[in-house]
Amino acid sequence: MSRTRGSNGALSSNAILEKDKFEEVIRHRFFYALSSEIYGGVAGLYDLGPVGSALESQIIDAWRKHFVYKDGLLEVRSCQLTPYQTLEASGHVDRFTDVLVKDILTGESFRCDHLIKAYFEDLLQDKKLNEEKKTEYINIINQIDNIKKDEMKNIIEKYNISSPITKNKLSQPTDINLMFSTSIGPVDGLSGFLRPETAQGIFVNFKRLLEFNNNRIPMAVAQIGFSFRNEISPRAGLLRCREFLMAEIEHFLHPDKKCHPKFKTVENLNIKLYSAENQLNNNSQQTITLGHAVEKKIIANNVLGYYMGKIYLFLQKIGMDMQRVRFRQHLPNEMAHYACDCWDCEIHSFHGWVECVGCADRACYDLVQHSTKSKQKLIAQENLTTPILIKVHEIVLDKPAIGVRFKGEAKKIIPHIQSFTLEQAEELDETLNNQGFYGIQIDGIQFNLEKNMFKSINFYKKEVFVREYYPHVVEPSFGIGRIMYSLLTHTCKVRENDQQRIVLIVVKF
Amino acid sequence: MSRTRGSNGALSSNAILEKDKFEEVIRHRFFYALSSEIYGGVAGLYDLGPVGSALESQIIDAWRKHFVYKDGLLEVRSCQLTPYQTLEASGHVDRFTDVLVKDILTGESFRCDHLIKAYFEDLLQDKKLNEEKKTEYINIINQIDNIKKDEMKNIIEKYNISSPITKNKLSQPTDINLMFSTSIGPVDGLSGFLRPETAQGIFVNFKRLLEFNNNRIPMAVAQIGFSFRNEISPRAGLLRCREFLMAEIEHFLHPDKKCHPKFKTVENLNIKLYSAENQLNNNSQQTITLGHAVEKKIIANNVLGYYMGKIYLFLQKIGMDMQRVRFRQHLPNEMAHYACDCWDCEIHSFHGWVECVGCADRACYDLVQHSTKSKQKLIAQENLTTPILIKVHEIVLDKPAIGVRFKGEAKKIIPHIQSFTLEQAEELDETLNNQGFYGIQIDGIQFNLEKNMFKSINFYKKEVFVREYYPHVVEPSFGIGRIMYSLLTHTCKVRENDQQRIVLIVVKF
Repeated sequence: MSRTRGSNGALSSNAILEKDKFEEVIRHRFFYALSSEIYGGVAGLYDLGPVGSALESQIIDAWRKHFVYKDGLLEVRSCQLTPYQTLEASGHVDRFTDVLVKDILTGESFRCDHLIKAYFEDLLQDKKLNEEKKTEYINIINQIDNIKKDEMKNIIEKYNISSPITKNKLSQPTDINLMFSTSIGPVDGLSGFLRPETAQGIFVNFKRLLEFNNNRIPMAVAQIGFSFRNEISPRAGLLRCREFLMAEIEHFLHPDKKCHPKFKTVENLNIKLYSAENQLNNNSQQTITLGHAVEKKIIANNVLGYYMGKIYLFLQKIGMDMQRVRFRQHLPNEMAHYACDCWDCEIHSFHGWVECVGCADRACYDLVQHSTKSKQKLIAQENLTTPILIKVHEIVLDKPAIGVRFKGEAKKIIPHIQSFTLEQAEELDETLNNQGFYGIQIDGIQFNLEKNMFKSINFYKKEVFVREYYPHVVEPSFGIGRIMYSLLTHTCKVRENDQQRIVLIVVKF
Repeated sequence: MSRTRGSNGALSSNAILEKDKFEEVIRHRFFYALSSEIYGGVAGLYDLGPVGSALESQIIDAWRKHFVYKDGLLEVRSCQLTPYQTLEASGHVDRFTDVLVKDILTGESFRCDHLIKAYFEDLLQDKKLNEEKKTEYINIINQIDNIKKDEMKNIIEKYNISSPITKNKLSQPTDINLMFSTSIGPVDGLSGFLRPETAQGIFVNFKRLLEFNNNRIPMAVAQIGFSFRNEISPRAGLLRCREFLMAEIEHFLHPDKKCHPKFKTVENLNIKLYSAENQLNNNSQQTITLGHAVEKKIIANNVLGYYMGKIYLFLQKIGMDMQRVRFRQHLPNEMAHYACDCWDCEIHSFHGWVECVGCADRACYDLVQHSTKSKQKLIAQENLTTPILIKVHEIVLDKPAIGVRFKGEAKKIIPHIQSFTLEQAEELDETLNNQGFYGIQIDGIQFNLEKNMFKSINFYKKEVFVREYYPHVVEPSFGIGRIMYSLLTHTCKVRENDQQRIVLIVVKF
């Protein structure tokens, strides 16, 4: 794409460019518009016009080349509509929430963290504020992502914070789920959601993907697609959308082998890092090579480090101003429920530093969850160079005895016992010997198994040449809309002799 | 993409290839899988694996080159989440329905047309059936897309059709809306839907698009994206999905100038057409050039004809077997509520002839609907070579008189009167003169306007050099999943010496 306007006259990105003026221009030229604008539009939903749409396609193409083709990843395209069970297993039904407060008189809803942050930012405007108060308020702002519902309640009460619009009192903060729910099937349908992330579409297909990959780990799988987040009151334009395009990679790897063969290609990149430690101590960010950061354990492992480098190179390639790009580590409580280390690639624009790419080590959280809930083994196997001895069990049932006692229910009970783990078999054996019976629960009903229902329970050693394990996963996750918005702010210029004229230069990459 | 298996040994597409075997192979190789399969899956939702996803991307790339780049179309990317008002205006809230019947004892739901069709197809299996009955049943099957709820009810009663599974009686047929509904906003949200077609995202942005196009008509706008249809009981694999990728073009044009400058490039293509007339008379399809078909008015106009030619060339380019491609005209009652002529490009595969691309002349239905509901003029203007005289009106209000009578409501009433059309102004003038007052309704409340509230109502002639009009629109609409499935069935071969082995050959295009 070439520049969208002629470029006579000197251009300068140093000249003052205002957010409102900039957004007016890109809306006027139909980079984007509020969705269904002729009906008043809907907050958080935007349509891309011809230039926005072309730029988005170009970013996607560049992304696919840089990540998928160059590193030989697999790519999938899963559904956006997702059944309840999948998102219950992933933890999103319980934990994909924001804290909400309402104006108790008008009923207007606010995102609690945003409201508290804005309250203290406002107080900080006061020039006469003493140093002690200033530090206190800055501390609250810096830790806002780190606190939960109850602490927010305490802050609201302590500082007597009211509705920013009416000054009315606020309700108790409550957790609100942010998924869009719907019914799959027009009558008596299944409960389902629009996916909150594309990642789950990869995890639930793990078994087929591993087979497709000839059972080899590491295996990296990419997906480009829309995700949805039913924001409470989105007010930040393209930066906070209810429907947004993402590009994600799930890089599965052995938990003891978190190193990437291509880390060498990025280890000398000098990158701005803002570690959790520096944030908590109110220190500033540091510039450091990825090699050193991994060596010093600032970044947990070199697979995370590799992807941080790849992200850096990608943003550079599409024309981002790299002086305005940094990686910020999540604070311990800020981390998603599944992550064990997480870095946000933040890009600076009119809205300050904004997360545009997340890069998390999700460990084996998702595969374990889905294995447990679906009763399918989402695991990998490794060959052992020297075989090991493991303890195994064998339960021989007296099926007629079970049938006589439990009638039709026997059909459920027999496979249930046959799927016992070693630990369960040991407990069964011990309990039967001590108490003469062993209680199990199936679908909420209790069944007492008795000794005569078992012909034998044996334990013995077995030599094995393979070991099963849950792969860990490193996940870089890109918000394409945020990247696009940031790119536009970084590449637009103002004419030096006419600050009312903005020139948008988007170079073909 | 090259062939997915080596190709030693003779291949033949004539050897018998069975649907089940074929689908087993493409699922086994993870072209696609049921979505959330580890939890049992959801009917009508499929995930694409690495090969399916790569093929889909390739079809999309080819489509964009063939239609968007080659003809210089605009492209947009609008939201899938759509507010109620937009889809109420488009008619989908009222008319995007299927007829449903339930087993009155088990409650199982069936799509009524599918159930009736299957019932008669079953009867036709009977070798001893006499000719009269045979014709009667075939007639019902051929017209099934042409009949509505009440006629279906009559057929069910006349033939005493029962549940195909339990043989229980069936409920009364009812119309069921097929949109997925959700709430936009997590508390007290707006009512919204997942879009049933991508087209509306173009219509609601018409004004901005026309401006972007320097107010020139014709203007063609493309969009690639997902649409949703909450099918009653989808049982046809990739051919009937609840979430599916579409590619659509809205070609806006002057209602009196329905000709395409590039029609010449396709007029000599020899294409299989199955006109509505031939279908209703139980005649077969005919092969004819597009030029002749337009000349003989079999196809309503040459813009429709042009796109039918482009569709043909596209399918040929990606490797479809063109012997198994035809265009079938919609029967009068089968046509969507907005269309004035419509051709389905049908491709023959294991499921018989299946609609893969629709090509409709939607006239100005959508722009008129949205103009009326949104009170924004979604129109184009044409310059007139010779100016014409038109009648215009001028209403001069006595605002204080209105204020005294209606108090605060005057704020609504005054702009309401000021937006009167010429016809309304004439009616107002006449009614005031005859009856002394004129009733209007705003938000369901009646207000009686009296003569003293008007200083004057004047009509006069005005010379104008431009005329406003609603552009018509021709819409080719592609189901990418159906095209992909058909392409796979057309390009796969069976080894002559081993009919158990299927070779999938997908050529890079």
